[in-house]
Amino acid sequence: MPMLLRTLGIVLLAGWLGLPASAQEEALPSWNDGAAKSAIVEFVDAVTAEGGADFVPVEDRIATFDQDGTLWVSHPLYTQGMFALDRVVALAPEHPEWKDQEPFKSVLAGDREAMARFTEQDWAKIIGATHAGMTTEQFRKIAGDWLANAEHPRFKRPYTELVYQPMLEVMNYLRANGFRTYIVTGGGQEFVRIYSEQVYGVPVEQVVGSSIATRYEYQDGEPVLMREPKVFFIDDHAGKAIGINLFIGKRPYAAFGNSGGDREMLEWTGAGDGARLMMLVLHDDAEREYAYGPANGLPDTKVGAFSQELMDEAKQKGWLVISMKNDWKTIFPEGAR
Amino acid sequence: MPMLLRTLGIVLLAGWLGLPASAQEEALPSWNDGAAKSAIVEFVDAVTAEGGADFVPVEDRIATFDQDGTLWVSHPLYTQGMFALDRVVALAPEHPEWKDQEPFKSVLAGDREAMARFTEQDWAKIIGATHAGMTTEQFRKIAGDWLANAEHPRFKRPYTELVYQPMLEVMNYLRANGFRTYIVTGGGQEFVRIYSEQVYGVPVEQVVGSSIATRYEYQDGEPVLMREPKVFFIDDHAGKAIGINLFIGKRPYAAFGNSGGDREMLEWTGAGDGARLMMLVLHDDAEREYAYGPANGLPDTKVGAFSQELMDEAKQKGWLVISMKNDWKTIFPEGAR
Repeated sequence: MPMLLRTLGIVLLAGWLGLPASAQEEALPSWNDGAAKSAIVEFVDAVTAEGGADFVPVEDRIATFDQDGTLWVSHPLYTQGMFALDRVVALAPEHPEWKDQEPFKSVLAGDREAMARFTEQDWAKIIGATHAGMTTEQFRKIAGDWLANAEHPRFKRPYTELVYQPMLEVMNYLRANGFRTYIVTGGGQEFVRIYSEQVYGVPVEQVVGSSIATRYEYQDGEPVLMREPKVFFIDDHAGKAIGINLFIGKRPYAAFGNSGGDREMLEWTGAGDGARLMMLVLHDDAEREYAYGPANGLPDTKVGAFSQELMDEAKQKGWLVISMKNDWKTIFPEGAR
Repeated sequence: MPMLLRTLGIVLLAGWLGLPASAQEEALPSWNDGAAKSAIVEFVDAVTAEGGADFVPVEDRIATFDQDGTLWVSHPLYTQGMFALDRVVALAPEHPEWKDQEPFKSVLAGDREAMARFTEQDWAKIIGATHAGMTTEQFRKIAGDWLANAEHPRFKRPYTELVYQPMLEVMNYLRANGFRTYIVTGGGQEFVRIYSEQVYGVPVEQVVGSSIATRYEYQDGEPVLMREPKVFFIDDHAGKAIGINLFIGKRPYAAFGNSGGDREMLEWTGAGDGARLMMLVLHDDAEREYAYGPANGLPDTKVGAFSQELMDEAKQKGWLVISMKNDWKTIFPEGAR
């Protein structure tokens, strides 16, 4: 019966629909019973219990989610990286010089080994050539068209279907309990905003991400925002805590990540008073998704690494590790494909 | 009775209860009948009429408000400027060298003529010395204490009481009609967030403003955000359109300003399709508040100038000018002092 009192939204909904109390336990149907699922439910119970020591007013119920590797697939490469590489190929006819210029040459040659060795400077050149020199509206159109047509090389589905069903359930469960769910991503803010509402139910104003500078200018007498090949803000590592303060202005009560870039976001969240929930997704399921660490002896990776150092810190600070293999009944939404 | 209808809940109630349209006109009791008041009511009618040509879904109902001179008094100086000057005086004992160093010397001498001639570089030095070198939490405490105790030199009231009652009514009226009201200010984002909820009913995450850089570091093992003497973002002129895209990601349907710094925000808003409302407050009431332009032959000013050029553009583009003297029955909330 106490379960009934767990949440405002769910209780109300259950009331309207006449659902039994057990329906609320089913808010996380894709989660196996275990420490991770229990931690989520217990946290929500604590912060929504009126009069309880850990009660949090609705206006302060903020939860932040990293995207790549936390909400959707980020291997073999970040989706936005895939987009950038495809754009290099699409734009190549306008840039004959790229045939002889790195890093474009390797991209056009499809040289995966060379691409795997790309430095940050290489990527900056690729992003500058593919993400700037157009208006914000033109960019949304180009990236939106790509997202509608591109397929993941292994799963042969649109990237926007390769989201983690258990995490969608956590977002819904938190929202049903009065939380606002923010995406706080190292990826491009403007890129993620294209599909955040449709895919995650997160409105564009709740997407905090990295951005390049924009310039206000005129085209045919109308004002436009022109995207410039110049970094404005990097929302990664300490930038995530800075970005949260800048864009949200409130400290989250719950934060979810999967790699070293999320460390400071979890630390910043955990430094607040009262009940806080910090969780990290561990990709330990090569069969259904991917397996990489290098924590826990899993294979190392350059894309979204979860180091042993981060694992040790998580244990020491009480950040909960979600095992994809053991905690999740399913990985992707069933309806998709 | 009309007082009853002033607020959000009540106006919504009026809709549910099928109350007559006149009830909605009473949402703006401090406004005299005229073009400005009519424009607001007609705009709201147009964007909320389901099935109408100008209907706007609730999730897109965004209204942006400049603060200084649009929502509260900004003469003889911006409130945050007053705070900075008071901080120079408060910090002077720790900086004996300021006695001989401009611009601090003039501030400490109370030399108003010299202060009136301060350049942007002078102000940058003052802001750097008074707004940086502390954590975000320390800054909120310092500025919050000042706001609780400072008084406006002419009106002898706390600055937070010197808000425009007619504009509070517009914000409430828009919110009652499904709008989210954002403050988009050239002033400091962190400064305005201290009182935005209490004074305007605007949550901190809906305050977009200028900011300095912050650095993630540790004090006694706890993470803090240290404010650095380095400009990060100037939310003024074109920066207001850029800031709206960056922080909100949606084009506003209504925008309110009072000076040249708001020009691009109104232009950006007006460049969208469908019904849009762009308004500028003209300070033409020396008796009850202040009178300055230099538009319409009013006295010139260095603080929040409304140029004749802006007035001409407003007429040409259909931006409505609000005459403080003629359109507003009252200026400040009655309850205050």
